[in-house]
Amino acid sequence: MARIDGERLLQDLHRLREFGRFRTGVHRPTLSEQDIASRQWLARRLAEAGLEPSIDGIASVFGFTRRPGRRLLIGSHLESQNEAGWLDGAMGVIFGLEVARALPGLAIDVAAFADEEGHYGKFLGSRSFIGAVDEAELDRAVNRTTGESLRAGLARAGLAGTPRVTLDDPSRYLGYLEAHIEQGDELDSGGLALGVVTSIVAIWNFRVRFEGVQNHAGTTRMAIRRDARVAMTRLANRIDDTFPDVIAERSVWTIGRMALDPNAPSIVPGRAEMNVQFRDADPAVLDRLEAHLRALVAEADRAGPCRVTIEVASKTIPRVMDPVFQEALAAAAERHAPGRWQRMPSGAGHDAQVLALVMPAGMLFVPSIGGISHHWTEDTKEEDIVRGCAALADAAEALLAQS
Amino acid sequence: MARIDGERLLQDLHRLREFGRFRTGVHRPTLSEQDIASRQWLARRLAEAGLEPSIDGIASVFGFTRRPGRRLLIGSHLESQNEAGWLDGAMGVIFGLEVARALPGLAIDVAAFADEEGHYGKFLGSRSFIGAVDEAELDRAVNRTTGESLRAGLARAGLAGTPRVTLDDPSRYLGYLEAHIEQGDELDSGGLALGVVTSIVAIWNFRVRFEGVQNHAGTTRMAIRRDARVAMTRLANRIDDTFPDVIAERSVWTIGRMALDPNAPSIVPGRAEMNVQFRDADPAVLDRLEAHLRALVAEADRAGPCRVTIEVASKTIPRVMDPVFQEALAAAAERHAPGRWQRMPSGAGHDAQVLALVMPAGMLFVPSIGGISHHWTEDTKEEDIVRGCAALADAAEALLAQS
Repeated sequence: MARIDGERLLQDLHRLREFGRFRTGVHRPTLSEQDIASRQWLARRLAEAGLEPSIDGIASVFGFTRRPGRRLLIGSHLESQNEAGWLDGAMGVIFGLEVARALPGLAIDVAAFADEEGHYGKFLGSRSFIGAVDEAELDRAVNRTTGESLRAGLARAGLAGTPRVTLDDPSRYLGYLEAHIEQGDELDSGGLALGVVTSIVAIWNFRVRFEGVQNHAGTTRMAIRRDARVAMTRLANRIDDTFPDVIAERSVWTIGRMALDPNAPSIVPGRAEMNVQFRDADPAVLDRLEAHLRALVAEADRAGPCRVTIEVASKTIPRVMDPVFQEALAAAAERHAPGRWQRMPSGAGHDAQVLALVMPAGMLFVPSIGGISHHWTEDTKEEDIVRGCAALADAAEALLAQS
Repeated sequence: MARIDGERLLQDLHRLREFGRFRTGVHRPTLSEQDIASRQWLARRLAEAGLEPSIDGIASVFGFTRRPGRRLLIGSHLESQNEAGWLDGAMGVIFGLEVARALPGLAIDVAAFADEEGHYGKFLGSRSFIGAVDEAELDRAVNRTTGESLRAGLARAGLAGTPRVTLDDPSRYLGYLEAHIEQGDELDSGGLALGVVTSIVAIWNFRVRFEGVQNHAGTTRMAIRRDARVAMTRLANRIDDTFPDVIAERSVWTIGRMALDPNAPSIVPGRAEMNVQFRDADPAVLDRLEAHLRALVAEADRAGPCRVTIEVASKTIPRVMDPVFQEALAAAAERHAPGRWQRMPSGAGHDAQVLALVMPAGMLFVPSIGGISHHWTEDTKEEDIVRGCAALADAAEALLAQS
C-alpha cells in the first residue's frame, strides 16, 4: 500500500493557494501573472521530486518519469475560474505530484494541462497533448475576459517558440488518472467521502430563437402584439414544467442565457433568443430530451404569433471511464472509506474526457462542502483531501502492478 | 373655415424627409448633423411665413407671431428615433407652420421642441420651455447612443451660450395644440380618419429583482437549485396569464427588458431582473394593476426558493386634455371626417403632456398605416395627412375666435 505524506500534500496545496489568492479562494486565470508564477513553481516542485520538468508551448506543465516502461499519467489543471476555488484543478495536480513522490519506484508522469477552464479555448492543454489542436486554432484563440490573444499571453510567459509536448505514442501509457473535487453536493449531502466516476456526462446546447414584431409599448394593443419575450418565457416555463417527466435520475437542464432585442422597457421586443442546455451520461436519455425539446419548440411555433426555431449550438458525447480503472479506484475507495463511497457520473467536463479519447482514463471525486464550485468559497475538508490522495495512490500502484 | 394648402404642406413634409433620409423613413437623432440642418431649414421656413424665427439654447425652434393679444401655440418635435418614421413629430411641426400660413391674421406661434424622443433626456425642449429644466440637468445630459454630452452637441450646433426661450407668462397663451400620428392601429383598423385625444396615459415602470444562488450547470442537482431565471420566467408568465383579468379595456403591459447574471449557458443564474411597465389613463386602474403586480411578487417570494422584490422605477401621471380644446377638435373632426373619427387616449407620451402642466392643451391623431411606429416603415396616407391639417386649422381658428 502506497504511503503518501499528508502534511507535505497539504503544505503544497496551501502554497499553491498563495498564487492569486482571493479571499479564501484564488483568482488565477490562465496566463495571468500569478498563473505563470504557479506553473514555474510547479515545475521546480516536480524537479525536486526527481521528475523531468517541462513547461511546453501552450503552458502545460509536465513532470516526466525517468523510469522505463509503460507509464501512468496523473494530472489535472492549475488555473482557476475568475475569483474561484482553491482546489478545482490544483488538487488533482498536487495529488499527481504527491503520488509520484510516494511511489518513486514506479513510472508516473504528472501533468497540469493548460486552460482547462477555458479562458482562451476549450481544453486547449489536454487537446494539444493528444494532437487535436493545430497552429491555426492557437492563432485565433483570444482571452474571453481581457481580449488578449493567446499568442501574446504565451509570449508574456516567455513561451513563444517553445514546442508543444504531444503524445506521439499513446501505447507508452497505461492510462490517465485524475482526481477532482466533485463540484456538486451528492457526496457531501450523502455523508460520503469518495466518488468513483463512471462517465463524464455529455453537454448538449441549443439556441432557440423567437421572431415577433418590434413595436411601441404604449400604442400597440395587446391583441395585435407579437411579443418575442412572451413567446420566450412561455416556452421556458413549458420546459421547466415538462422536463421532469422525461429526464433520467441525474439529468440536469439549464436556461442560463437569454437575450431580448432591443431589451428596452418601452419597446415590445421583436426578437429573443435563449440557450437551452441539458446534460446526461446516457445517449438514449440525451436523444429523448432533444426530441422532447424539439416537440415543445414545434408546439410553440404552431401556437404563434411568433416564429420559434431551434438549432444545435454544440454537442459533446458522454465519455465512459475505463472499467479496469474504475475497479482499481473502487477497490482503493473501499479500503480508505469503507461503505462511504459511490460510483457516479461527472456532471462537469474534465481533461479526463479528452485523454479518454486516446487511452484508458479514470477519475476520483472528493466531496465539495455544500456543493459549492466556481466560487471563492469552494472548499473540501483536509481529511477528505488526504484520504482522496491516499486512495488515488493505491489505485495507481495497483494499476501499475497489473501491467 | 381656414384654407390650408395641401400641396405646400406635403412638399414641406417631403423636403423635411430628405434630412437624414433612411430608406422610406429618417434617421435624424437630436443634434445629429442632419437634425441641426433640419432646424435651420425650419427656421427659414418660419421666417418666410412671416413669423419671427428663433433656435434657442436647447435647440428648440420657434416661430413667433408678430400679432398682439393672446396666442395659440402649435407644435411637436423635429428629431426622430433611430432609423424611424418620417412623420413622427415632423408632421405636427409642419402642421403648425401650415396653419400659421393659412391663418395669417391670427396670433399663432409654432414650436419644434427639442429632443422629445429622448436622445439626451426626457422631453428636454418642452420642459425647458415651461421652466422645468435647470442648468445642472443640461450639464449632466448625455446622448444615450453616442455618449456625447448635450453641452458638446449644442456647441457643435453653434448654440453654446444661446439663451433658452422660456415661458415667462403662460396667460399670454390660449393653449397648445399638437397633431401627431397615432402610432397604434386603432384608427387604421377601424377605418377612421381622425382621433381626438382625451388624455395621455400614465406610464408606470417597476423593477423586479430575483435573488437565488449562482451555481454550476453540470454539477448542481435540479432539486437544490435556486435558479433566478426560473423565478423570473415563472413570474413573467403569471403576469401574462393574470393581467387580462385586472386590466381595463385599453391598458397595456410590457416586460421589455430582462437581465440574467451572469447570463452564460453553463451557469445557473444567481440573479435576474426584469422591468414591468403598464400604461392606462385611469388612476384607479393604475392603482389596481400595481396592487395586483405587488401581490404576484409577494406570492412568488413566498413560494421560493428565490427572493423576489419590487421597486418603482418611474411613474408619470395621466394628463387630461382640455375639454374646450377637445370640443373644438371634435367639431373640426366631424366636419372633415363625418362619422369617421373617435375620441381616444394616447398610449404614447407627447410634448402636450408637458405643456398641459401650464396651459390648456389638445391633441389630434391621424392614422398610422398598420399601426407601425418607431420604424422606418411608419407611414400615413397623404389624404389623411392633408385632412388632419385642415381639421387642426379649423380647430385653431375656432379656439382663437372664442377667445
